[in-house]
Parts: sequence; structure tokens; C-alpha cells
Amino acid sequence: METLSTAKSHGGVQGVYRHVSEATGTEMTFAVFVPPQAARGPVPVLWYLSGLTCTHANVMEKGEYRAAAAAHGLMIVCPDTSPRGPGVPDEPDNWQFGCGAGFYVDATQAPYAANYRMASYVRDELPALVARHFPADMARQGIFGHSMGGHGALTLALKNPDRYRSCSAFAPIVQPATAGWSQPAFEKYLGADPAAWRAYDATALIADGARFPGFLVDQGSADPFLTTGLRPGLLEVACQEAGIPLTLHMREGYDHSYYFISTFMPDHIAWHAERLKG
Amino acid sequence: METLSTAKSHGGVQGVYRHVSEATGTEMTFAVFVPPQAARGPVPVLWYLSGLTCTHANVMEKGEYRAAAAAHGLMIVCPDTSPRGPGVPDEPDNWQFGCGAGFYVDATQAPYAANYRMASYVRDELPALVARHFPADMARQGIFGHSMGGHGALTLALKNPDRYRSCSAFAPIVQPATAGWSQPAFEKYLGADPAAWRAYDATALIADGARFPGFLVDQGSADPFLTTGLRPGLLEVACQEAGIPLTLHMREGYDHSYYFISTFMPDHIAWHAERLKG
Repeated sequence: METLSTAKSHGGVQGVYRHVSEATGTEMTFAVFVPPQAARGPVPVLWYLSGLTCTHANVMEKGEYRAAAAAHGLMIVCPDTSPRGPGVPDEPDNWQFGCGAGFYVDATQAPYAANYRMASYVRDELPALVARHFPADMARQGIFGHSMGGHGALTLALKNPDRYRSCSAFAPIVQPATAGWSQPAFEKYLGADPAAWRAYDATALIADGARFPGFLVDQGSADPFLTTGLRPGLLEVACQEAGIPLTLHMREGYDHSYYFISTFMPDHIAWHAERLKG
Repeated sequence: METLSTAKSHGGVQGVYRHVSEATGTEMTFAVFVPPQAARGPVPVLWYLSGLTCTHANVMEKGEYRAAAAAHGLMIVCPDTSPRGPGVPDEPDNWQFGCGAGFYVDATQAPYAANYRMASYVRDELPALVARHFPADMARQGIFGHSMGGHGALTLALKNPDRYRSCSAFAPIVQPATAGWSQPAFEKYLGADPAAWRAYDATALIADGARFPGFLVDQGSADPFLTTGLRPGLLEVACQEAGIPLTLHMREGYDHSYYFISTFMPDHIAWHAERLKG
């Protein structure tokens, strides 16, 4: 692992790191904020998964998570959203597929299966690396994210309830298998059979029996993707039917941007802290 | 004035606007955060001046000012750091002069005098525009900034103590007339006679009799420009000799970046709020 940069911030250290990933077959860059409490021992780890077109850097620069993470003593880890590089198959003109759009799946279809293994990367490989190099208490992990990353957080949590103690999302894609901006990507990554998509669709996972202690979701009412790509009502129905507690806040007038995310970031971090430190 | 974008954030509105400036002879872009308290009447205005290479956008995206501004009910206005455009004389390879490096002076030398009038722009023209278009209480204005913008804030405050009730700075250039990254720009903007530079040098202004009720300055100890370009000790001496109260915090391990600025942003906004709302 190579350190690309570190800077003191809010009493902790915001760093950017690079390593060669076995899962993706590429170099991967990620960001870690280590809070000041880590000087006294390992701290809980909160994973933030970003949305379409993002790298690790967007939320690191605009998400405003450090103040709350330092207040609560949480480490924040921000992975990239896909493999990248000259050998990685991509559709450069398509922002909803390929680089910047890994959708947190393990692709099964050629030519994507060799690199697009973001589920394994985020769930297994990067946590192992973080456990080796940072003062992380891996017995206390939470996960959250935005949009495509909200989808990633919900599905990883539902499939790994023993791994993650807490899960929340900002404007998540709750049913990617049927949304116009994700279904084509699922087909290319996972093949034409919709049955294969269910393992990466929060509402389908719940219908198929996956459970989690509860979710916090914030959604802006002025989000241009609200009724097409995001559709939080579908998660509400799925959680109601399954008996999963869902705290869903519709936020009047907020859009899909980091101006929205940063506004409710302190609430989400406090919500995770309560569950990770309890 | 043209609205380029608006987004709800922290209960208020973060907007970006453009207008044709008489002072600079160019279009100018600036950012305004209107806090939620403005719904009940005009709010105090806090000006943030950015550093070398920046536009209005850097602090808007990375400065993390909205949470504290919304908590205290302050409007934050972020101007650009220079005129820009095809007709504006520039040295594109020089990040310490020209576009992105207006140094908040009114240039007197050809070919710069026609456009590089950032002192007049920030002190007169933009406030008049803000007063017309936003719920701003212009009787309660404060000013702060970073690096070159810290220099801008200090000098504007010292020259206009009736205009600004409060002034603070992050890592300001306190004696630009003698610093290697600013003295060449002063010579090109203001001419070869160092006497002309004193009107834009905080320590010279104080030596020449300018006064202000007090300053708050935060400076990172790991700032790579600390001992060459910034030199807060020179401001400390000038303030001591003049009897100007200076609260100078040396912040152990912090650098010159927005990771530093955002850490101490809430302290600065609280400090201004106390003086603007009292």
C-alpha cells in the first residue's frame, strides 16, 4: 500500500492511499479518515460508498464527514466506485456503466468479470487491507453511501448482516434491477437472466428473505431522480412487508447533490455511532 | 445578475451567480449562501476571500462553512480572486500573478489597471449588487479569508473599519510587500515604487496608523509557506506595537489546505457571529 497524501483535519488524519487489488486486477485508490480517538486504540469503521461518476475524492472533498467522525470517533473509509485503467473494459461515453459505475457487483460476464468485482473488493479485500494498516476495530463496521453507493450499502448490509452493524443511505437506488439507469448495467455485468440480478437488488433481497436490524434513509424531495431511478417508496413497502425498521426522511426541497448529503451527514454519522459504539 | 445554480443546503440556499462588473470590465462569478434565518429578515454578511489559484468554488465546495453559517444566521459571500477572460492580461504559467492572483488590489499599471481592480470590486461593486439582490443587512458586514485572501481581508478591514465590524484570517500573507510570492505581483500591478505597496500590506498599514478592533488568525504549524510567504509573527509584532488585539492560534500539524480551513471554520464563523450579531 502506497500513501498518496495525508493532511491533518479535525484533529485526525485524512489520507489517500493506493494499492494493487487482486479482486479487480488494477491499482485502486481509496481515502481513509482516522479520527483523533484512534491514538487511544482501535476505532469503529464506517464505509462510505459513492455514486455514479465518483471516485474516492468527491465525498472526501465535499461530504463534510470529518467533523462528525472526529466528534464520534469513527474511521471513515471511501473506496472508488469501479476499477479503472487502460486494460479495463469501459464505455467512456456512458456514465451509467463501466468506469465510475461498478454498481458494487461481482460481474460474471465477459469482458467485465475480470475487473468489475467491486462487491468482493469492498466486502473482503479492502477491509483486510484496512485491518492491516489502520487502527480499525473490524468487529464494529457500519456502511453507508449515496445513490448507487446507497444501493451498494443496502445490498452489502442485507447480504452480510454479521459483518455490518449499521447501514444508512442518502438517496439510494433501492430497486436497481428495474431502474432505467442500472438495469442495462446489471445485464452487461451479470447476464440477461433477471434471476441473477436479485442478489444485488435491495428490494429483491428482502423479498427473498434477507434481513437487517434497520435502515436510515434520507431522500431529497427535489431530487431529479426521485421517481425514476431512486423510488424510496419501494424500499418502504419491502421493509414494511418484511418487518425491517426503516427510518425514511423525505427532505423538502433538497436535491441529489453533495449540498444535500453534507446537510444530513452529521445525522447519519451519529446514527451509526450509536449502533457501532453501543 | 444571472443565477447559474442554486441548491438547498443546511436549511438555506447555496447559489452561484454571474454579472458584468464595471470595476473589472469582465463577467464575474460569485457564490452566496443565504441562511434559513433570512426568511425572517435581513441577515449579517460575511465575506470570504480565497487564496491563489482559487475561484469562488473552492471554498464553496471544500470550506464546510454552511453548517456554522446556518447555525448562526450569517450570509456568506465568496467572490472570485481575479478578473478572467480572453481580454484579461495574464501570465498563464505563473500561479502567483494574473488570473487567480488578483491580490485584492486596484492595479495602477498598464496593461493591468483596466481589469485588475479587485479592491474596488470586493469593497464597493459586489456589496452594492448583493445589497440589491439578497436579504443582506449591509450595516453588519464582516470579512475573512485564506492566504492571499487573508491578506485581502486584513487590508480591506484596516482600510475600512467602518465598513467591516469583524475580520479574521486563515494563514494570511501578512506582509505581501516583502514576500517572494507577492512582491513581484505588487510591482506589476502597482509599479516599482514600494511606497505604493504599503496601502495593500497589513503590517505597513498598521505601521502607517490604520487600526481595527481586533483580529482572529489561525495558522498551521506544518504549513509549507509558514516561514516564507505567510510569517504571522510579523503581524503579531505590528499588532503589539499598535495595540491591536490579535488572537493568533498556531495549530500543531496543520497544513495550508482546506483540510485545515474546514477544521477551524466553525470557530471563525462563531467569532464573526459574536461581533456581527451583538
